[in-house]
Amino acid sequence: MARIAVVAGDGIGPEVVAQARKVIDAVLPGVEATEYDLGAARYHRTGEVLPDSVLTELAGHDAILLGAVGDPTVPPGVLERGLLLKLRFAFDQYVNLRPSRLWPGVSGPLASVKPGEVDLVVVREGTEGLYAGAGGSLHRDTPAEVATEESLNTRHGVERVIRDAFARARRRERRKVTLVHKTNVLTHAGSLWARAFAAVAAEHPDVSTEYQHVDAAAMFLVTQPQRYDVVVTDNLFGDILTDIAAAVTGGIGLAASGCINPTGAYPSMFEPVHGSAPDIAGKGVADPVAAVLSAALLLDQLGHADAAARVTAAVGAELAGRTPGVPLRTAEVGDRLAGFAVA
Amino acid sequence: MARIAVVAGDGIGPEVVAQARKVIDAVLPGVEATEYDLGAARYHRTGEVLPDSVLTELAGHDAILLGAVGDPTVPPGVLERGLLLKLRFAFDQYVNLRPSRLWPGVSGPLASVKPGEVDLVVVREGTEGLYAGAGGSLHRDTPAEVATEESLNTRHGVERVIRDAFARARRRERRKVTLVHKTNVLTHAGSLWARAFAAVAAEHPDVSTEYQHVDAAAMFLVTQPQRYDVVVTDNLFGDILTDIAAAVTGGIGLAASGCINPTGAYPSMFEPVHGSAPDIAGKGVADPVAAVLSAALLLDQLGHADAAARVTAAVGAELAGRTPGVPLRTAEVGDRLAGFAVA
Ligand SMILES: CC(C)[C@H](C(=O)O)[C@@H](O)C(=O)O
Ligand SMILES: CC(C)[C@H](C(=O)O)[C@@H](O)C(=O)O
Repeated sequence: MARIAVVAGDGIGPEVVAQARKVIDAVLPGVEATEYDLGAARYHRTGEVLPDSVLTELAGHDAILLGAVGDPTVPPGVLERGLLLKLRFAFDQYVNLRPSRLWPGVSGPLASVKPGEVDLVVVREGTEGLYAGAGGSLHRDTPAEVATEESLNTRHGVERVIRDAFARARRRERRKVTLVHKTNVLTHAGSLWARAFAAVAAEHPDVSTEYQHVDAAAMFLVTQPQRYDVVVTDNLFGDILTDIAAAVTGGIGLAASGCINPTGAYPSMFEPVHGSAPDIAGKGVADPVAAVLSAALLLDQLGHADAAARVTAAVGAELAGRTPGVPLRTAEVGDRLAGFAVA
Repeated sequence: MARIAVVAGDGIGPEVVAQARKVIDAVLPGVEATEYDLGAARYHRTGEVLPDSVLTELAGHDAILLGAVGDPTVPPGVLERGLLLKLRFAFDQYVNLRPSRLWPGVSGPLASVKPGEVDLVVVREGTEGLYAGAGGSLHRDTPAEVATEESLNTRHGVERVIRDAFARARRRERRKVTLVHKTNVLTHAGSLWARAFAAVAAEHPDVSTEYQHVDAAAMFLVTQPQRYDVVVTDNLFGDILTDIAAAVTGGIGLAASGCINPTGAYPSMFEPVHGSAPDIAGKGVADPVAAVLSAALLLDQLGHADAAARVTAAVGAELAGRTPGVPLRTAEVGDRLAGFAVA
């Protein structure tokens, strides 16, 4: 039976993760879960972000379920670089998977887009690009200061994430992959991405392809999000585009995410895109849907496609049944979702 | 009297630039305009993109009005790096100014945003960052290929564009500047931007400030574009955010842009954000509004704030008077705009 590590984290993290576990237990009884105390609270208490011993223990699990980490008093970058990015890099989670659907029952911000019409997934590279941490500065705090950030891209890293995108496209109805980059300005990295994309595309004649510059893609995600099926892009572009995709499909409150190592050499990690939301923490009113959808991605990654599909369908039923304006209770939503998932 | 260089360019470029000149002539008779033949057509005919002699001649003008350059048969990057970016860098156009308004009469894609509610301007850095062209690759076309792109940021370059943003905020009603970066990941460049921003902000206690990560800003531009007044950001983030801002205010068909050297040491350049649109070129149906709004930015930069305001008001009158679905004729719109501007 699967062994998962649970990092509930801060703020609403524990509240929404509890519902995700409830739903997992309903569709796949017997999953073994071990809790790890990481995040802002631990950092404040002990000064530790991610001790090596914990990293080693996490590595022994099949997957990680994360709620949310952070609070406004932790200096920016500490938990991001020390925990979230550290895990992505240490566990070589090169596929950052971010699906976006405009669910029936959810009113998005776009006047012309109807529920059900948007169903896309961004396959964001997770271990390279500007996230490599390759930067520096000179003459800091003087008028002569210069600061650099370097985007590092390898054929190895680019090709494997593009392959993953094509494999996912093959399992979807429209079988279309859009490469997003900025080849007209970032000519070196852009050329590498474009050539790797062309090579992998040639092996997938049944998948249709297109290329867009990142600025155009950002625009079309707002004006015609329906046009996308699978989008593959670099780490930073993916960071931006997935937030736009979330915004046009009802907000990051509904957005799920998986940081995946498809080889299985290390555990993959699943988390809602939303943060710890300290303003509503402890009130039992946080929407657990994004955490539950993240749990569905986890189940799918562990080979339980059926259980994942039932959880996803449960979310569909829950959202379709909501009455706008009626406040929700986190635990009740979890109970309903668990019920729908086994019905 | 002002001497401007006109690069009408390709596709619909000449059609929309003709209207912009019509409107300039109406509000500021006597402007001397010299045409320069640059763009895809010249490149195909002669192989030249921007001869040094032309660059020198352009430098002798007070400003440049550009229509659109490019067509699908020019290899990507040739005109971008060889002409547009070349001019931005050669003329040290460090302020890339991109206003976005949701004009009364224009229906944007957002259900909850009413015309008149969005009025923001992005001050995009124009001469640094990932646009510096500092990248390279090794082992090209082998499995060992690595490609880099470097973002170069100087205190000099960052501070001057932030100063410009604060100066512009002081001339606006809300007096608010939002810094957008990704300080939690791009820690070196992010820290430089954040410290320069804090220093300039301290000199402007009458201007309110906020900071957002680029992914959050991309999201809020979709969900709450009303919240922004002046946004200052780096070159690549600005490229992406301005296309989102254009998308939520009716599309890049209405978006104007100025590449400005505020010192006056070199000419500034003004151009609609839209491209050469080969599919509708020559039919006389292109909307010249973005070109005319770019002309208004040009007039303002040359010290003719009054004439600029009249042109902007003319655009307001034109857009408010349009009937959705009624096709437009480029020249007629130009005539009407010229008329409104001098009424
Ligand atoms: C918290 C931050 C480091 C992270 C990122 O930039 O990847 C977040 O924005 C995300 O999208 O998961
Ligand atoms: C054409 C391209 C080089 C340019 C840019 O990236 O700056 C364009 O997208 C823009 O926004 O003006």
